[in-house]
Amino acid sequence: MRSVSIVGVGLTKFGEQWEKSFKELIAEAGVKAIQDSGLERKDVNAVYGGCMASGRFVGQEHIGALIADQLGLNPVPSTRVEAACASGGVALRMGYMAVASGIHDIVAVGGVEKMTEVSTEDAGFALGGAGDQETELFVGASFPALYALMARKHMKKFGTTEEQMASVAVKNHGNAVNNKYAQFHREITIDDVMKSGYVSSPLKLLDCSPITDGAAAVLLMPTEQAKKINDKAVEIIASTQASDTLALADRENLYETKAAKIAGKQAYEKAGIKPTDVSFAEVHDCFTIAEIMAIESLGFCPLGEGGKFTEQGNTQISGQIPINTSGGLKGKGHPVGATGVAQAIETYLQLNGEAGKRQVKDAEIGMTHNVGGSGATAVVHLYKKA
Amino acid sequence: MRSVSIVGVGLTKFGEQWEKSFKELIAEAGVKAIQDSGLERKDVNAVYGGCMASGRFVGQEHIGALIADQLGLNPVPSTRVEAACASGGVALRMGYMAVASGIHDIVAVGGVEKMTEVSTEDAGFALGGAGDQETELFVGASFPALYALMARKHMKKFGTTEEQMASVAVKNHGNAVNNKYAQFHREITIDDVMKSGYVSSPLKLLDCSPITDGAAAVLLMPTEQAKKINDKAVEIIASTQASDTLALADRENLYETKAAKIAGKQAYEKAGIKPTDVSFAEVHDCFTIAEIMAIESLGFCPLGEGGKFTEQGNTQISGQIPINTSGGLKGKGHPVGATGVAQAIETYLQLNGEAGKRQVKDAEIGMTHNVGGSGATAVVHLYKKA
Repeated sequence: MRSVSIVGVGLTKFGEQWEKSFKELIAEAGVKAIQDSGLERKDVNAVYGGCMASGRFVGQEHIGALIADQLGLNPVPSTRVEAACASGGVALRMGYMAVASGIHDIVAVGGVEKMTEVSTEDAGFALGGAGDQETELFVGASFPALYALMARKHMKKFGTTEEQMASVAVKNHGNAVNNKYAQFHREITIDDVMKSGYVSSPLKLLDCSPITDGAAAVLLMPTEQAKKINDKAVEIIASTQASDTLALADRENLYETKAAKIAGKQAYEKAGIKPTDVSFAEVHDCFTIAEIMAIESLGFCPLGEGGKFTEQGNTQISGQIPINTSGGLKGKGHPVGATGVAQAIETYLQLNGEAGKRQVKDAEIGMTHNVGGSGATAVVHLYKKA
Repeated sequence: MRSVSIVGVGLTKFGEQWEKSFKELIAEAGVKAIQDSGLERKDVNAVYGGCMASGRFVGQEHIGALIADQLGLNPVPSTRVEAACASGGVALRMGYMAVASGIHDIVAVGGVEKMTEVSTEDAGFALGGAGDQETELFVGASFPALYALMARKHMKKFGTTEEQMASVAVKNHGNAVNNKYAQFHREITIDDVMKSGYVSSPLKLLDCSPITDGAAAVLLMPTEQAKKINDKAVEIIASTQASDTLALADRENLYETKAAKIAGKQAYEKAGIKPTDVSFAEVHDCFTIAEIMAIESLGFCPLGEGGKFTEQGNTQISGQIPINTSGGLKGKGHPVGATGVAQAIETYLQLNGEAGKRQVKDAEIGMTHNVGGSGATAVVHLYKKA
């Protein structure tokens, strides 16, 4: 297997993009990534695109072909992968595998979702497709409800508090203020979160990531060649993926995310490092409890202590292990298919020292953790400067 | 790259499967494939599943995780790929790449679609997502209309007749009679096709493939090991994929399918063979005109002569190049995400001499050709007995 690096990135503004179509978002992110790399369109050998529910959101499938078409990359093979909210991360992994194996040399990886074309209710139904439609969504268990069940279990078993969960949202909103691509540029307080209305108790409005439009793209190529075309190459030193049961009711327990734990463990092994070697991580905070469970599953703190660990400031940019410097899904926004790719872009910026006011000091190794549904898919990547 | 073989296959009955759920179809095909191979569930290292529009058809996304869950394969990585009606073929290609590259040893590839849970009108809208939603479906150009445009152009440029198109349907229905998994077991005549009502002139009801429920699965592993576990291994000797513009209006012309031509040419080059070396092929006959254009693009007859070539009987099982011995999409049925995998299963049966009354004599090399939308994705595979 060859070493693979990211050599260019492109991101659209995340938010309610009324003025831009689904296609325009794809084109914008893709063109930016190609320009950033210094490569040309004709250099691209294949495309992998992550998108969760474009059929429900914009009536469009066949997203692989659409991406190639929008970027004028025909006739290269172009494939959409879907893994709910982990679609972007899995697309990145497919692209990584294609380059690592030598099947393709230069691969474009994109992620996109345009979620605001439908009503919030319809968006909820579309997102519900990430869980078990038959036994969860059909009987009313929308995603806030599923994560609320996990939160309740975590609270009961470990004493995690609503204030501790709120501290995740406060931190991530704070980080998002310094990210020009983020959906929200507004600091919030614990009090703001606690006073926001319950969506599904104990989760309140400000515990939930928003509905977002956006797209993200990166270009991958063998590290050896990457280092010759520019000085920004960021190497992917591990790429792992694991699955768990689709339905929460079938899990071993509700207080930890097993697929993330497995993918994380495999990633550390592949890279030959420990959690303490990671300088910063972008984790999947679709709800505040999800970030708490993620940092436990990834070994940044012991099981059950994620709430306290966060409340104490350890996951701040200046803390022991900065988490979601980009603002995360909560502050930056969560266009579901794009999220996994956008996470990789934050690591690229951090490792190149280009994260501005949210720059992590001495950033050497970055991690991304992207989750589908209530945890049935988890994808983990590790990165370092090439 | 390692040589890769199919070592087990599983297919559900194709048709209106009112008594089986989406999940049950997946489980049935997957379990059959594992049993057929003689492998066990614990041997499977990864899963790729093809599915086009489950979000629209059954309100379910996250199909990769769902497949792994249904088959008890957790925590292996499991990924859904979508390329409209070529989803199954692209999933097969992803699985092939994973094994060929040495990333995984044993991979399960599945395809599924349950299309009858929604009204025919809604199914039409879901399928329309395979084209360009903005410039085609939104203005009323459903898939029969898009293929009707191609048919009209082909008729005008080459003199192809409605009777010639009808001869595709007659042949494929005839072949389906001998396939117990096929949706239709009814011979039809040219007269039947000509008298069936216009769906979109010149295409009539019997020129169109049906709405179908079904699932298909195959197991892939390195040929060297495959030959040790049973004597049925069928080697994939080429796997290629190409893209074209999403919208018909952006194509170079309407009378040939460029992506299929490119993918076909690449496949012949990789395998080091010519079209005349192919013993039989399963091609994407979503409409009768599509089969005519496919056999031209794949080099089985000259451009423009596909209609006459078919009418003369050259594509019959006893003909020069048997096409769609399984009954094709027209006779066997077209559960869109499953089709590409089901095509591979027909080649496995033919090359093992297990196709019963539809067996091709001296079958040595098989081909599958799976198309997304009106031709924006084309996937071609070549096979021979390992």
